[in-house]
Amino acid sequence: MPPEKITSIAITRITPAGAETAEDVVAIEEPLEIRAAWTADGEPREKNISVTMRTPGDDYDLAAGFLFTEGLIRAGDIESIRHWGSPNQVRVALQPHARIDASKLDRHFYTTSSCGVCGKTSIDAVSIAAAPLPLSEPVSADVVHELPRALQGAQTAFNATGGVHGAALFDRDGRLLRLREDVGRHNAVDKVIGSYVRANESPFANTILTVSSRGSFEIVQKAIVAGIPVVVFIGGPSSLAVDLARRFNVTLVGFVRDGRFNVYSGAASTRSRPRDLAR
Amino acid sequence: MPPEKITSIAITRITPAGAETAEDVVAIEEPLEIRAAWTADGEPREKNISVTMRTPGDDYDLAAGFLFTEGLIRAGDIESIRHWGSPNQVRVALQPHARIDASKLDRHFYTTSSCGVCGKTSIDAVSIAAAPLPLSEPVSADVVHELPRALQGAQTAFNATGGVHGAALFDRDGRLLRLREDVGRHNAVDKVIGSYVRANESPFANTILTVSSRGSFEIVQKAIVAGIPVVVFIGGPSSLAVDLARRFNVTLVGFVRDGRFNVYSGAASTRSRPRDLAR
Repeated sequence: MPPEKITSIAITRITPAGAETAEDVVAIEEPLEIRAAWTADGEPREKNISVTMRTPGDDYDLAAGFLFTEGLIRAGDIESIRHWGSPNQVRVALQPHARIDASKLDRHFYTTSSCGVCGKTSIDAVSIAAAPLPLSEPVSADVVHELPRALQGAQTAFNATGGVHGAALFDRDGRLLRLREDVGRHNAVDKVIGSYVRANESPFANTILTVSSRGSFEIVQKAIVAGIPVVVFIGGPSSLAVDLARRFNVTLVGFVRDGRFNVYSGAASTRSRPRDLAR
Repeated sequence: MPPEKITSIAITRITPAGAETAEDVVAIEEPLEIRAAWTADGEPREKNISVTMRTPGDDYDLAAGFLFTEGLIRAGDIESIRHWGSPNQVRVALQPHARIDASKLDRHFYTTSSCGVCGKTSIDAVSIAAAPLPLSEPVSADVVHELPRALQGAQTAFNATGGVHGAALFDRDGRLLRLREDVGRHNAVDKVIGSYVRANESPFANTILTVSSRGSFEIVQKAIVAGIPVVVFIGGPSSLAVDLARRFNVTLVGFVRDGRFNVYSGAASTRSRPRDLAR
């Protein structure tokens, strides 16, 4: 039986009629470790090539495609592919004539973040770097509804090209504090957080991080490390993003559009918050 | 003067009225190498921490944010940040009390693909792994217009969640050959290509790769290594994706919507191609 690619979770749906409990379907995100095994100079070699956050299913296709399209193997090099150790580890054994050029790994590959080989391990790894946030008060629905327009209105590079992600920090009344843009959504988040870190400022405890994209585990992880209590994705979050937000008391909102949004973790207040209230 | 984030390029725009030459604005994508320097046991240490494909600008914010949100440094650890060597290399010097825990790098970081530290170096690195493709005949506009609907119609996980990328191979008449889905767009591309590689099949020379997302350098790179001559993004491509496609004779199409699309590299035929023509 193929692994599940989607899962159903309980959420709060905010509509013009008010808040309701609902079931929502999210894409599953779990890490996959890709290992390669080959023989060089008569000796068996084995190496962990990559860990990638992926949706389970077609794991053998992913491992073969990754090694091939990154230029590490050629068509016909694969002898067998098996799950190894866990459903999130795959081992690609190469034909006797084939090998991985280790110097290629050094030259063409670089590091980026990850944390272990299952969702639980990934979440545990965040626990090493950060503690759960203090419980925060519900975010105002009135404020959330306005975030997409405020974000896109400020995104100059997006508006010119239609092809750039934006990440912005807002205060809890919906005032835009700072925006950064990048072709990579994780880079946009790093830029906006890093702009404060460089200045030794830490306004994060009372802010809302709004990201123009779908929501990943990694973005929620970055918010937690910074101490940002509310994350709003214009698109939908992954299963692991939701799990992580719940574990660390992050309010997680997604699919903000047409006067509706979903609350995946934490709470939203549907009461109006006076905009002119001094805080 | 801050670096440019967007650039203007000449494209062919296909509209219901026919083909016209136009200027289009795309987001710039270039690699950034992040280095850290610190002192441990009285000895100066320096290490290349990451290379990420990013939009130039706010590079110091990106470097500070990346090191901080990945748990490698704490607020207050930074002494200075400077460009180093080139506009695509940044060096973060840490305060005397601060250091990068090298074991953390080993434990929490994994490898993914990259290629040098400037756009040209990145493109040169692809040349090592693959040669330019043979010039291919223009892709039919009738076929391109139908791809988004065909892709989304087949995306079962996307249709359930609204949060999953799809990558599909079509033949030149627009028939869907195979689709894969993933929370990561690069993973979806690896899965669809890898499904053929595993079976020792190579149908790529006469196919169209269609991806539900915006277009990156890495996706075009993967198509070139596989030998796929036409890549269609539902969103827009980055500058480096266009540069790479032009250098390797890949037909690159983007922003397919409402009866229009842009041709960034290669050519599209606006003549109708009979669907029932045997090929």
